[in-house]
Amino acid sequence: MKVKIHVTLKKSVLDPQGEAVKKGLLTLGFAEIDQVRIGKYFEIDLKVMKGQNLREDISKMCEKLLANPVIEDYEIDIPQEGS
Amino acid sequence: MKVKIHVTLKKSVLDPQGEAVKKGLLTLGFAEIDQVRIGKYFEIDLKVMKGQNLREDISKMCEKLLANPVIEDYEIDIPQEGS
Repeated sequence: MKVKIHVTLKKSVLDPQGEAVKKGLLTLGFAEIDQVRIGKYFEIDLKVMKGQNLREDISKMCEKLLANPVIEDYEIDIPQEGS
Repeated sequence: MKVKIHVTLKKSVLDPQGEAVKKGLLTLGFAEIDQVRIGKYFEIDLKVMKGQNLREDISKMCEKLLANPVIEDYEIDIPQEGS
């Protein structure tokens, strides 16, 4: 199964990378840009065991490695759950 | 309007970051991981001008700055288009 995860900075956290990209786009003539926020996108292929709580396991992966819970939020997209 | 863009490495391109994260997850005991692919995720807030071809403009942004067309693919998600 392929699980998709979005890790983004919390709204309250400044995004210097996003600001830099915004300036770059404005410089290239894309004048309509208001704001750019940049995050990480993970596609994880994994085997699902019988009775496994997949969402709980994926949350643990995010909390332990994929995201920094202090400054980042994460969103888990499990296909057949339609979340 | 908020447009969402996913920039990912082409399937044929090796993903050393993804491999490193995979090893990390396996070390943490998440044995069911087969593969991890990592990409960039952009949320762009912008004003839409009357008659503007938004998808074309966003593609230009990707081609010029957000993605490296040689090794990366990009996917544009424009809300009301339901793409």
